[in-house]
Amino acid sequence: MMLKAIKIPFKSGRFAVILNEDDASELGVREGDRVKIRYGKAHLIATVQLTKEIVGKGYAGLTDLASNELEIVDEANIELFPVQKPKSVELIKKKTRGGKLTQDEIRRIVEDITNNALSEVELTAFVVSSMLRGMDFDEIEWLTRSMIETGERLYFDRGIVVDKHSIGGVPGNKISLIIVPTVAAAGLLIPKTASRAITSASGTADTMEVLADVNLSVDEIKEITERVGGVIAWGGATNIAPADDKIIRVEHPLSIDPRPQLLASVMAKKGSVGAKHAVIDIPVGEGAKIEDADVARSLANDFIELGRRLGLNVTSAITYGGQPIGRTVGPALEAKEALKAMEERKGSSSLLEKSLGIAGILFEMTGVATNGYMHARKIFESGKTLEKFREIVAAQGGDENVGADDIPVGDKIYTLKSTVEGAVVAVSNKSIVKIARTAGAPKDKGAGVYVHKKRGEVVNAGDPLLTIYAEKDWKLDNAIEVAMAERPIVVSGMVLEVYGRRGV
Amino acid sequence: MMLKAIKIPFKSGRFAVILNEDDASELGVREGDRVKIRYGKAHLIATVQLTKEIVGKGYAGLTDLASNELEIVDEANIELFPVQKPKSVELIKKKTRGGKLTQDEIRRIVEDITNNALSEVELTAFVVSSMLRGMDFDEIEWLTRSMIETGERLYFDRGIVVDKHSIGGVPGNKISLIIVPTVAAAGLLIPKTASRAITSASGTADTMEVLADVNLSVDEIKEITERVGGVIAWGGATNIAPADDKIIRVEHPLSIDPRPQLLASVMAKKGSVGAKHAVIDIPVGEGAKIEDADVARSLANDFIELGRRLGLNVTSAITYGGQPIGRTVGPALEAKEALKAMEERKGSSSLLEKSLGIAGILFEMTGVATNGYMHARKIFESGKTLEKFREIVAAQGGDENVGADDIPVGDKIYTLKSTVEGAVVAVSNKSIVKIARTAGAPKDKGAGVYVHKKRGEVVNAGDPLLTIYAEKDWKLDNAIEVAMAERPIVVSGMVLEVYGRRGV
Repeated sequence: MMLKAIKIPFKSGRFAVILNEDDASELGVREGDRVKIRYGKAHLIATVQLTKEIVGKGYAGLTDLASNELEIVDEANIELFPVQKPKSVELIKKKTRGGKLTQDEIRRIVEDITNNALSEVELTAFVVSSMLRGMDFDEIEWLTRSMIETGERLYFDRGIVVDKHSIGGVPGNKISLIIVPTVAAAGLLIPKTASRAITSASGTADTMEVLADVNLSVDEIKEITERVGGVIAWGGATNIAPADDKIIRVEHPLSIDPRPQLLASVMAKKGSVGAKHAVIDIPVGEGAKIEDADVARSLANDFIELGRRLGLNVTSAITYGGQPIGRTVGPALEAKEALKAMEERKGSSSLLEKSLGIAGILFEMTGVATNGYMHARKIFESGKTLEKFREIVAAQGGDENVGADDIPVGDKIYTLKSTVEGAVVAVSNKSIVKIARTAGAPKDKGAGVYVHKKRGEVVNAGDPLLTIYAEKDWKLDNAIEVAMAERPIVVSGMVLEVYGRRGV
Repeated sequence: MMLKAIKIPFKSGRFAVILNEDDASELGVREGDRVKIRYGKAHLIATVQLTKEIVGKGYAGLTDLASNELEIVDEANIELFPVQKPKSVELIKKKTRGGKLTQDEIRRIVEDITNNALSEVELTAFVVSSMLRGMDFDEIEWLTRSMIETGERLYFDRGIVVDKHSIGGVPGNKISLIIVPTVAAAGLLIPKTASRAITSASGTADTMEVLADVNLSVDEIKEITERVGGVIAWGGATNIAPADDKIIRVEHPLSIDPRPQLLASVMAKKGSVGAKHAVIDIPVGEGAKIEDADVARSLANDFIELGRRLGLNVTSAITYGGQPIGRTVGPALEAKEALKAMEERKGSSSLLEKSLGIAGILFEMTGVATNGYMHARKIFESGKTLEKFREIVAAQGGDENVGADDIPVGDKIYTLKSTVEGAVVAVSNKSIVKIARTAGAPKDKGAGVYVHKKRGEVVNAGDPLLTIYAEKDWKLDNAIEVAMAERPIVVSGMVLEVYGRRGV
């Protein structure tokens, strides 16, 4: 059927064509069916959306992705044909029935995911079926390789390339800002691609962005890494393992994270940047992504096995994730805390022990030092970490002379105080994140939470427990309301009275 | 956040709001997140879509469903708040993890499906998880009851209400056009709600629509049933078991039909119209929905058990579904064949035996006759079936004097002939449907296929095998192309030569 194209400036993750109901009926297609669109020599497969009014009879509305791909002009003549579902839909049904997928089949599915050829219904069926039917290690390896091969990759001609990854779930986890310069200062290459917050208050990319540009291309990541040893870039600005982002867009609304996809997601990113050694940080504790130590151990072993199959030397580090790392949550607050620690060569032990511990593991894996932690600590305390961090910030277009005190944070401030005397028995990851997000993080860089008291610390009545920072009054008000309802920090004066006769 | 409403006339199955990316970022919501929209005293929960251009900063675009629900005017001031996912998303995750859902939990999910509160991702997760984790009979019963209770229902003050349902997959299955008047002629009430074709060439509603209006409200269905004894209406025009249609919209693109949903879907419709006795027709054979007789038997028993739990007397009839019923496929051709059989009081045995057999079962279940089939046959041969059918057609606004020969069919015609001599060994359901749909069915009422030779029938070289009818030349051409490629009817001259020395 011949129609005239009109551009509809909708942002949509897929190729979509909006048809008048009459034309669709004539063509024999329904909402969600696929049509092939031909424009001159260009063609693509798009999904049909229906309208009564926006697009008149005889016209076909093309959303952003599709009109850009075809380089279409308004009123251009295009031809539409109904087409069958892609072969990968059959393959997804095979997984739904419990079958093992072959390497070629997984490659086909990942290609269709990458090319936006699958609908949300089909992609969800793949993710949920993979979770319930499971994938064996062959399938997980093929999934990872397919994700790597369908995206951009980094190749380094020389140097030892390392990487680290935290599987997430713990607020305030700003450790990459210290690990990357420490490792780079020792002569290793660490091209760290990080994510932005989806459900958290700040991803590493959001935090780094307070100080430097993180929207780097693959070429820029390579150039900076080769020049200064390390980089902290937003992975989403590259085309590294693009299938992964699309899978996450389905997992996120269901808050599911099937193990096959989790393993493949992490390792595809490490493989794509050319890393040969990687540490995977698995935080465990109440309110973290993994709450059970046995689950963490089994996941740790899976990462090592998948690494072995991919030719990647992996160490898994199980870390404590039952409360925030350091004392700050939110982009500017976290950048400030990390930079201040580097400037003062000291800081919150949960932040420094973890950062230097993971840097140390990388030193041991690569033979840089036999006592990795001590070597990392020496670099940090010598000021080389700070010096290298400033080089990285400068290479990413930031101000290399920036000091922690120069970083602005929100000027709408409220401090929640303890009404009782006692010791902190719980700091809720989830509540802290909720408060920080309500205050405006990660969009408002200066918004977030400062945690004055963490688990085990003693509190007197009237002592500050946490301070909320916001850039806008209404967001501060909403965050205060959440803080009042949520009990983010629990002080157990009561328990101390009963068992210890208030003897502290 | 306060925004100005603008109407965006998009047909969408859910409440959707289209926001400028900047406003969405300010509000802290992403594509697919939910927001509560308040307009005066009205409010609803809508899903966020993002745009850079269609909707400017400060505006919120509302698609059809949402703007109608709020009765909004352009430029109206509306307020938006981010909201959490509905509770049912947690419950869907429970099923994903393999848990048994309670009656209240299933009710909650079905309500959210009915209210368009779930995204495609969430609904797909529910359907796929129900398929892979399964549901026990309690859950299936609750699912069915919830589907009934969340929709419109029919109540009859007097009379015995019966119903029939074919689970589908066999082309040409026009039996309801004969069963309904036969049963009604015997004094039973049969308020038949039928579906339109989704993947088939003609649903019963499409076929009936050739002769009468099928877009009836629940009140009209009740009134006509009470007055003339039967009706054949399109279920989609009512609000009977609305959750079912929405579930099917997810199953269809995956071509899956999980047993819990299949059972609930059929029985919810029977329960909603107030039927006390129902026959479920389960066609079995190559190319039918069910190919294996054991699967059909187990499904038959499940229908009976579910009926027992719902207080509905069910008989399951396993029928032959390995080739089309009767000789025609496509709305007008099927209506013509059914009407002609009633006029001539004879016809294709596959059509008449099945129709009268099922009517007969209903007679036996309700005590109308001890030999139900003979009773049905007597009614049919006496001309009472035709007489009642004309009454039903008239009650539904059609021409009661219409004759089979008055029904127009497509005038673009092509007949495929046998090139060999032999016997028909296969008539492919799937190929016949594909040809009929390519020819224009069900949209073009006159399009379809006439099957001249069925399984076992003897063919000479040059004999017609099937005739394709279309309303448009280009559709006929495409259908011929499909027919040439598909081998819809296989004549095995070769086999007869080898084993029977061409002795037929």
